[in-house]
Amino acid sequence: MDVGTTGCKAVLFSDDGRLVSQSYREYPLYHPKPSWSEEEPEEVWRGVIEVLRETVAKSRIDPVEVKALSVSAQGEAFTPLDRGLKPLYRCVTTWDDRAVEEHEYILEKIDRTRLFKLTGHPSSPVYTLFKLLWFKRRKPELYGKTWKFLLWEDYVNMRLCGAPAIDYSLASRTMMFDIEKLRWSTEILDLADLDADKLPEPHPSGTVVGEVSRRASEETGLAEGTLVVTGGHDQACGALGVGAIHPGPAYVSTGTVESIVVASDKPLTDPRVLSMGYASYCHVAPNRYLTLGANPTAGVLLRWFRDKFGREYVEEAASKGVSVYDIMVKEASRVPIGSLGLFVAPYFMGAGTPNWDTYARGLVIGLTIAHGKPELVRAILEGVTYELRLNVEALEELGVEVEELRTVGGGARSPFWLQLKADITGKRVVVPVITEASSAGAAMLAGLGAGLYKSLDDALRRFYREARVYKPRMDVKRSYDRFYGVYVKLYPRVKDVYKMVFDLLRG
Amino acid sequence: MDVGTTGCKAVLFSDDGRLVSQSYREYPLYHPKPSWSEEEPEEVWRGVIEVLRETVAKSRIDPVEVKALSVSAQGEAFTPLDRGLKPLYRCVTTWDDRAVEEHEYILEKIDRTRLFKLTGHPSSPVYTLFKLLWFKRRKPELYGKTWKFLLWEDYVNMRLCGAPAIDYSLASRTMMFDIEKLRWSTEILDLADLDADKLPEPHPSGTVVGEVSRRASEETGLAEGTLVVTGGHDQACGALGVGAIHPGPAYVSTGTVESIVVASDKPLTDPRVLSMGYASYCHVAPNRYLTLGANPTAGVLLRWFRDKFGREYVEEAASKGVSVYDIMVKEASRVPIGSLGLFVAPYFMGAGTPNWDTYARGLVIGLTIAHGKPELVRAILEGVTYELRLNVEALEELGVEVEELRTVGGGARSPFWLQLKADITGKRVVVPVITEASSAGAAMLAGLGAGLYKSLDDALRRFYREARVYKPRMDVKRSYDRFYGVYVKLYPRVKDVYKMVFDLLRG
Repeated sequence: MDVGTTGCKAVLFSDDGRLVSQSYREYPLYHPKPSWSEEEPEEVWRGVIEVLRETVAKSRIDPVEVKALSVSAQGEAFTPLDRGLKPLYRCVTTWDDRAVEEHEYILEKIDRTRLFKLTGHPSSPVYTLFKLLWFKRRKPELYGKTWKFLLWEDYVNMRLCGAPAIDYSLASRTMMFDIEKLRWSTEILDLADLDADKLPEPHPSGTVVGEVSRRASEETGLAEGTLVVTGGHDQACGALGVGAIHPGPAYVSTGTVESIVVASDKPLTDPRVLSMGYASYCHVAPNRYLTLGANPTAGVLLRWFRDKFGREYVEEAASKGVSVYDIMVKEASRVPIGSLGLFVAPYFMGAGTPNWDTYARGLVIGLTIAHGKPELVRAILEGVTYELRLNVEALEELGVEVEELRTVGGGARSPFWLQLKADITGKRVVVPVITEASSAGAAMLAGLGAGLYKSLDDALRRFYREARVYKPRMDVKRSYDRFYGVYVKLYPRVKDVYKMVFDLLRG
Repeated sequence: MDVGTTGCKAVLFSDDGRLVSQSYREYPLYHPKPSWSEEEPEEVWRGVIEVLRETVAKSRIDPVEVKALSVSAQGEAFTPLDRGLKPLYRCVTTWDDRAVEEHEYILEKIDRTRLFKLTGHPSSPVYTLFKLLWFKRRKPELYGKTWKFLLWEDYVNMRLCGAPAIDYSLASRTMMFDIEKLRWSTEILDLADLDADKLPEPHPSGTVVGEVSRRASEETGLAEGTLVVTGGHDQACGALGVGAIHPGPAYVSTGTVESIVVASDKPLTDPRVLSMGYASYCHVAPNRYLTLGANPTAGVLLRWFRDKFGREYVEEAASKGVSVYDIMVKEASRVPIGSLGLFVAPYFMGAGTPNWDTYARGLVIGLTIAHGKPELVRAILEGVTYELRLNVEALEELGVEVEELRTVGGGARSPFWLQLKADITGKRVVVPVITEASSAGAAMLAGLGAGLYKSLDDALRRFYREARVYKPRMDVKRSYDRFYGVYVKLYPRVKDVYKMVFDLLRG
């Protein structure tokens, strides 16, 4: 299972690592206030039930043949439940900023460095900790009635087998988990005066925590007795899905957002990790940590361009029956390297790692009257990819080897963009056969729990194969080195302007 | 007469300053090499003849009633003619860069500061001096055969009355005229080894230099004996046309390019004038000098936006039968002050005065995914107008009072943009009744020469009246002060990036 923000997916894999069948359901997000973001737990659970039924049905396999299940889950999002598992409130998701004051309150008691050392995350109101505190302070009665605050992995596990079991990677995303001691942090819970027994039970990923109950079997169509195994945070499962559990390969997911995950033996503790905005926390692989960087505006910029400036592209796509992005990228591919001196810094929603700046905004520099739509699209793709190179270089500077980029997501469907990644970063770029990386990672953990594999490396030998490889063309790389040399100078030059604009608009 | 780069215009005024009739003809520019720019002298002359005939015919006035004529002319452009007035080459115009090497050659012999002191112009290959030297060095035979190199004022005067008479303002635009001694600079001519007798005869503006000959009368339909009076450079005539011959009012012409002209008693000699790119040279008013600043990319940016991103606006304009710019500006007018934190620095063809940087390129900063076409159009208009404020402030810092902006050109047809000029600069913005400012200025000089007016001030009392006035709204001004405060910080931050991009693209 993969339970995401806007939909869930069930994917059935054979023990030799073939994708047998899959099914997907969307569910809505609710915004009772513009900056709040909630899901209806029953709608998500209904989605889970439906995709499980559908995936097994599509496979034409007897449900008893399904050995085990693990959940890959979105981070942070949680639901308060009573003892009878009745939701006492909607699920509060990551992109909900209700807990800004609670965040400030905690930061008065503990500094960011200590919080980072304990949890591996740069502090931000997105994390579960602050939202739990919000409930405790603003809905004390509801807080009192709450038996458990469950994230989606533990919620699904609870519904399937009665164990509110979370793994270490997803637990890390709450900002309450001690990533070295591997248990809820009493230091943090004490600060916030929160009760540890209202939290799920942490286990290593790949641990059998129960079996599908009769009732759950009736609901989901899974066979009673199917093993329920701890999975992980979707970024961690995705990294496992492409084999990024040892130093070397990086997991790059290019969608609306672009993320990069690398593995290491220890969490990264260099103070720059915090200031660059990386999270460095428990991996789903035993005794491994992952470091996660992200650019919040990757594919979303192509959508922005399509919606705001691309009506002609949309019309052409409709008349030809092809994807509008294919048309945009094709036009961009005809523009010379470096977009005729045009640069786009994609900070339309702030700068992600490693510049890490919530004030930052989009920058376009180098415009002449010769520039039009194709040049802008190419400059957007180049800018997003320069950000990926910034991340690769920052991670290498922090001591993590990045040998190649193993990439999935919508961006991995564009050969032009994949080659651009190789040419700009100078790394080998690989698209795996199985691009459902989070689901594959969860399935490997399920198989490990079920005893099908001796180790995750054993599982990977069956699941991971290269479908397509893009190698850097060294002449193009040399050209891009020169453009990148200018690109890296842009942010430091205008950094203080972003804060000025922020202050200006605040009044 | 107004003889411009792409067309010429004849405008007939009554002695009490009413515009009686006018006529316009376009003529082509030729580009034998991409960066060369030429006009065919006979085509221009045919245009002159046609508009003169047509304007008099439209007026239904007996040609003998037309007392006098003066020419307002584009700067720099000149034609080599033999003794029989046969063109020996096409007219070479301003935006022709053939003389880059000759420019460098002269700069090895004399420094920019001295050249500026003598001529009032920051050195550049656009000026006539370097192109004359080009002929002398590369076409020595043609140079030898040339009787006169004439600019358009003196060419027309010569054809009408036999006197190759140029005025001081247009002579200044050759970079060979000593603006203090008011004669051709022997220092400069000696440096370039050019013959002063191949140049036209300089006279003050408003000097009667002859009468329309019988032959010219037959060609043009003007009456024999009509007085031919020296006019001036089009920027100088335009400034006179709106009364900018004393310190106080500035002449602002907003078209493809936006220019600003202010008058003073002496040329400005502050070294910053040169580094900011201002030209400070002879005015058409006696004992007056003008200072000229310009933004090379004003209206041209709206055209760029229309052509590259505005198909929907073009379609809407066609279906409604209105101007596409009206639609663009209307949408922009609905966006809040400051375009939601979006800034556009309009340096798409380099920065004009006062940042004066040929390497500069367009900059867009502050983008979020909320920004689309209307916000960009507004940010373009705001950016162009911030540049106007930069010029107003720079001129004031250099000691020239700017009390109000008297504005003409396409940009003066937009009430929104006019109010924006007032709100951003904090100056009263006036659109005069007669917006054909260069023609009006030439007509005043003709009238002065013909003895109809005691002085140019006397002429102005009849010609200049306010049609519409836009006053700064102080609350809006205060808001814009804050946005402008951020805007002025942008160029210094990224100045060195522009040179890097230039070097990058050169190879």
